[in-house]
Amino acid sequence: MVHVGIVGHRGYSGAELLRILQRHPRVGPIQLEHREEFAGPAIRNRKTLAQLPCTPEAVRGQGLKLVFLATPPEVSMELAPVMLEAGARVIDLSGAFRLRTPERYTTWYKEPHTQPALLAEAAYGLPEFCRDRIAGARLVANPGCYPTAANLAIRPLLEAGVIDRTHGIVCDAKSGVSGAGRKPTLKTSFCEVTENFSAYSILKHRHVPEVLQVSGLEDAEFSFTAQLLPLDRGILETIYFRATGVASADELLAIYEKRYQNEPFIRIFHSGHVPDLRGVARTNFCDLGVTLDAKSGRAVVISALDNLVKGAAGQAVQNMNLMLGYPETEGLL
Amino acid sequence: MVHVGIVGHRGYSGAELLRILQRHPRVGPIQLEHREEFAGPAIRNRKTLAQLPCTPEAVRGQGLKLVFLATPPEVSMELAPVMLEAGARVIDLSGAFRLRTPERYTTWYKEPHTQPALLAEAAYGLPEFCRDRIAGARLVANPGCYPTAANLAIRPLLEAGVIDRTHGIVCDAKSGVSGAGRKPTLKTSFCEVTENFSAYSILKHRHVPEVLQVSGLEDAEFSFTAQLLPLDRGILETIYFRATGVASADELLAIYEKRYQNEPFIRIFHSGHVPDLRGVARTNFCDLGVTLDAKSGRAVVISALDNLVKGAAGQAVQNMNLMLGYPETEGLL
Amino acid sequence: MVHVGIVGHRGYSGAELLRILQRHPRVGPIQLEHREEFAGPAIRNRKTLAQLPCTPEAVRGQGLKLVFLATPPEVSMELAPVMLEAGARVIDLSGAFRLRTPERYTTWYKEPHTQPALLAEAAYGLPEFCRDRIAGARLVANPGCYPTAANLAIRPLLEAGVIDRTHGIVCDAKSGVSGAGRKPTLKTSFCEVTENFSAYSILKHRHVPEVLQVSGLEDAEFSFTAQLLPLDRGILETIYFRATGVASADELLAIYEKRYQNEPFIRIFHSGHVPDLRGVARTNFCDLGVTLDAKSGRAVVISALDNLVKGAAGQAVQNMNLMLGYPETEGLL
Amino acid sequence: MVHVGIVGHRGYSGAELLRILQRHPRVGPIQLEHREEFAGPAIRNRKTLAQLPCTPEAVRGQGLKLVFLATPPEVSMELAPVMLEAGARVIDLSGAFRLRTPERYTTWYKEPHTQPALLAEAAYGLPEFCRDRIAGARLVANPGCYPTAANLAIRPLLEAGVIDRTHGIVCDAKSGVSGAGRKPTLKTSFCEVTENFSAYSILKHRHVPEVLQVSGLEDAEFSFTAQLLPLDRGILETIYFRATGVASADELLAIYEKRYQNEPFIRIFHSGHVPDLRGVARTNFCDLGVTLDAKSGRAVVISALDNLVKGAAGQAVQNMNLMLGYPETEGLL
Repeated sequence: MVHVGIVGHRGYSGAELLRILQRHPRVGPIQLEHREEFAGPAIRNRKTLAQLPCTPEAVRGQGLKLVFLATPPEVSMELAPVMLEAGARVIDLSGAFRLRTPERYTTWYKEPHTQPALLAEAAYGLPEFCRDRIAGARLVANPGCYPTAANLAIRPLLEAGVIDRTHGIVCDAKSGVSGAGRKPTLKTSFCEVTENFSAYSILKHRHVPEVLQVSGLEDAEFSFTAQLLPLDRGILETIYFRATGVASADELLAIYEKRYQNEPFIRIFHSGHVPDLRGVARTNFCDLGVTLDAKSGRAVVISALDNLVKGAAGQAVQNMNLMLGYPETEGLL
Repeated sequence: MVHVGIVGHRGYSGAELLRILQRHPRVGPIQLEHREEFAGPAIRNRKTLAQLPCTPEAVRGQGLKLVFLATPPEVSMELAPVMLEAGARVIDLSGAFRLRTPERYTTWYKEPHTQPALLAEAAYGLPEFCRDRIAGARLVANPGCYPTAANLAIRPLLEAGVIDRTHGIVCDAKSGVSGAGRKPTLKTSFCEVTENFSAYSILKHRHVPEVLQVSGLEDAEFSFTAQLLPLDRGILETIYFRATGVASADELLAIYEKRYQNEPFIRIFHSGHVPDLRGVARTNFCDLGVTLDAKSGRAVVISALDNLVKGAAGQAVQNMNLMLGYPETEGLL
Repeated sequence: MVHVGIVGHRGYSGAELLRILQRHPRVGPIQLEHREEFAGPAIRNRKTLAQLPCTPEAVRGQGLKLVFLATPPEVSMELAPVMLEAGARVIDLSGAFRLRTPERYTTWYKEPHTQPALLAEAAYGLPEFCRDRIAGARLVANPGCYPTAANLAIRPLLEAGVIDRTHGIVCDAKSGVSGAGRKPTLKTSFCEVTENFSAYSILKHRHVPEVLQVSGLEDAEFSFTAQLLPLDRGILETIYFRATGVASADELLAIYEKRYQNEPFIRIFHSGHVPDLRGVARTNFCDLGVTLDAKSGRAVVISALDNLVKGAAGQAVQNMNLMLGYPETEGLL
Repeated sequence: MVHVGIVGHRGYSGAELLRILQRHPRVGPIQLEHREEFAGPAIRNRKTLAQLPCTPEAVRGQGLKLVFLATPPEVSMELAPVMLEAGARVIDLSGAFRLRTPERYTTWYKEPHTQPALLAEAAYGLPEFCRDRIAGARLVANPGCYPTAANLAIRPLLEAGVIDRTHGIVCDAKSGVSGAGRKPTLKTSFCEVTENFSAYSILKHRHVPEVLQVSGLEDAEFSFTAQLLPLDRGILETIYFRATGVASADELLAIYEKRYQNEPFIRIFHSGHVPDLRGVARTNFCDLGVTLDAKSGRAVVISALDNLVKGAAGQAVQNMNLMLGYPETEGLL
């Protein structure tokens, strides 16, 4: 039994991470208590969990091989070097180490990046496209929830050359409220969300540069709107583009089938079936479906996942499995 | 057009009050800006509204006849004497002036009462039982949402002597989330409430003494549990007791019919129909229904209302109509 | 008091129509009882309403000037000529008379059109663009809910020439469940909808040809996906296009402001404010907001309305007001 | 790997049963296809499952040791003898075999009981109170969801003699919509349930006699109301009674602690913590909490469980584990 630490177990992603790790047959989670941005009551846990102060001494003393940071970016920038120094590898669930340059980070997160060397070193934790780098990395930047759904849908088609980039890609994204975190705000209070639906960060969400980095799209080619659904968990993205060089939806599906044939967490939906949020809730799957108007080339891809699992904690455990040499699906099926 | 002031228009009750008053044909609402406990963004209003500072000068200068306080009890205790001094009559939506003695207030609200003379003077604003006192009052204590539903259901039956008090009365109450106010808390955040249902203040809710005062029940005769429904607005109370001296549900209904025959906001449901929350949403009605097991005398009354309307802002306007000599239903149907 | 008839008052649109007409100061609604596709229990109504059999004799005998058909298309095709013959003008809320040719109807509704002459005669009931024809029409085809939101957003910009049509327009539409009608189906049952979000009729919804007819777009220029929100009422459409010849969102807003300056039911949202579903619930408003990335020309318009009001019953009453010479907003504010 | 059959896998209980059995390490589920009352589309299953016709030949040919009937009572009465005859033991999730006499069945289910001999033979499947009989039974009547929550709360206190039966017990029950089954009805359609809360079967729910049978209460001592919550799954019962001979909530808790000390699926909540539906969702736990007003003896017990798990499919698997000699928690933690 290998011990791994979690900082930020009171947030929704951290709590989901705890839940997954408690069922994982090879690791034992330990809560590392840090003064956190949101210090609300802990989410109920079934078993009592080991707790330690969030210090290098505790990490070294306990011999923790790996620490998950489910903390805000500024806390992650502070803790990542400390944990690495103490001998633990790090998977960070925040946006701190996802963008490639400090400048880009500052542009989107409105603050300086205090760890440019680590930023340069970090591996981007999207296993379907970065598996080898993740396995050997000291520091993994776990992807954002929206970019995971978008990149898994878009990149295989771009690689196959079937998207007409001159027309651009539209990604209309909808997320459950848990994606906004557990800290109480008016915007996420029940009476404001129930029976409502609203858009935010239109064309300027900080997850956009993650999509551009992974897909290779230019800013002008990618239009993204985030929207808040009156439900707890799940992201569904409706992605529009012009297909080129394909005569049927089946040809697009074949590209996905081929690219993802060995991927345990990607499910391709064939005609007549459309991914929805119930189908992915509480799973680490990303479901993909395709519609094509063959005459005009207009295509729609639906990409659905659970923002707390494949969009956060589940993907983090998938990355941990790669880093520690376990079967990639361990604890996730 | 008579001008009336509102302090606390940013909360849910205050905002509902604004909405009702904006459609009222005889009054024009004015927002009085007070430093408030919750200073979140205002709820969207259709028309631009007159605003004034919340001072005696403004109240006197504008000649406001009446001011609504949709503020926390401690703010109401501070503002009520100021407004009265400035020549306005006051309807207070908080719990500040509902209980009959300062001692009782301190027991339930955990703080001293700073205005005992006003407490003694205040009329309890349940029109169906206190109409005459309300009409002539300077200060009206608008009832709590739970006690309104309970007292309208219980008191006519107690007066008619058909409740066996030795068995006691059980009132199992359920409320929508808007009853908890607009200030963001973890307890009222979407992800904690959706797909959940939970009890709170079991046997010790501060609305209990209001029920006892109006009904004449003893503490030991009344068991009350408050519970949070995953919906925005509405209170439904399921009230259990042993009936005595009645042979059918119709006899119980006849008591209600007689007592409420001239009441515009009480609707009695006859057999086969049961009040529910959809039926009262956005109305000033309280709906009542009865079930009786004639053999054993076990009886169940369902009482339903909208906590923001008949349970708060609507009842406050009903009280205003009485105080200013308008038809009681003006602006409320 | 002019009497108007309603066929189909048991469905959600018909019930909403009843509610609006009961508050309308100039008309008295009468329920016309027809054997209907869905004969479920009536939605609760506050007042007892006059009822008549749905026959030409009753319509003529009562001297009904106007009849609303809130019925499925095949019933509307059967009843429209009967009602016209009996001397009533007709507003049909179904899709029976919206498309311009019988062929187009058959393509999208999968059945022959039995009233081609009436189809040719019918006026399309979108007041903001067809006010004059509606006022004098015998038969008005009340628009679909999705096309109302789409056309009000798109057509002014197309007329102003600021949409680059070569890039096409994407309309990602989300609707509350009441849009699917009141007849119980597995798809609209609570347990299937709550905590879920799903797409349907991707690129082939029968509302698409209504958008093309009113906007003048070609099929290949317009991509439309309908999606089901876990809420009762409301439609929000997120519309993407490339703007041409405009340098700022304000220029796009100015086009709307000018085009809709005299329109009582269109509200333009300026920067920092985004339309959402709470803001339009239970109103006849359509709210419009704009975001532009000036560098690339990528633009997003949000269009929101209540599918049962501006998307159905409210717009039908707006049309009735035009037809009967009443102020257009009567009963709707 | 022992094979077990499921009839009725398209309903919510049957689908939940499939899900649990697919993760169970010792059994392999087989779908038995019966013409069913509700023949809607199957709930999505992760793996392809073996299917057989629902015939004695198939059951015998496959050597099925046990068959679950997740069917309406009249279908269960038809199938139970067939399955037993074919050599399988039976766990029936319907109400067909729960009541002790055919007369009682007819009173509550409004139809004759066609299998009185099997009714007499059936063991009532509440493991916490009937473990030994279940282990050896050929036919187990899996308890109703409401009675499971009620009996687990009430019976230990009745056995301990701490409930004053002259005052009677009130059980105010609230259930998620999945308890009403998957067949689409107006009552369970999304638009009727969302933002609503309503009571049904007041004082005459067919689950009442199950509570009386297990607890030993008389009809006149037990008042029960069922109510529909706007959520998918979960039952919470608020149970009121007069305690006698106890001086604190802790004494009541001690009774539960002692009675349930070896029970893996009962959790006792101590002061300051109250069971809610989130805490039991997707688990086989029943959570119990107690509040007491020591002066008057008024007591409130909260009992919460997931109606599809401990209230149906999970408890059925618990019974299967007992019948087949597996650890009772196998596949359920």
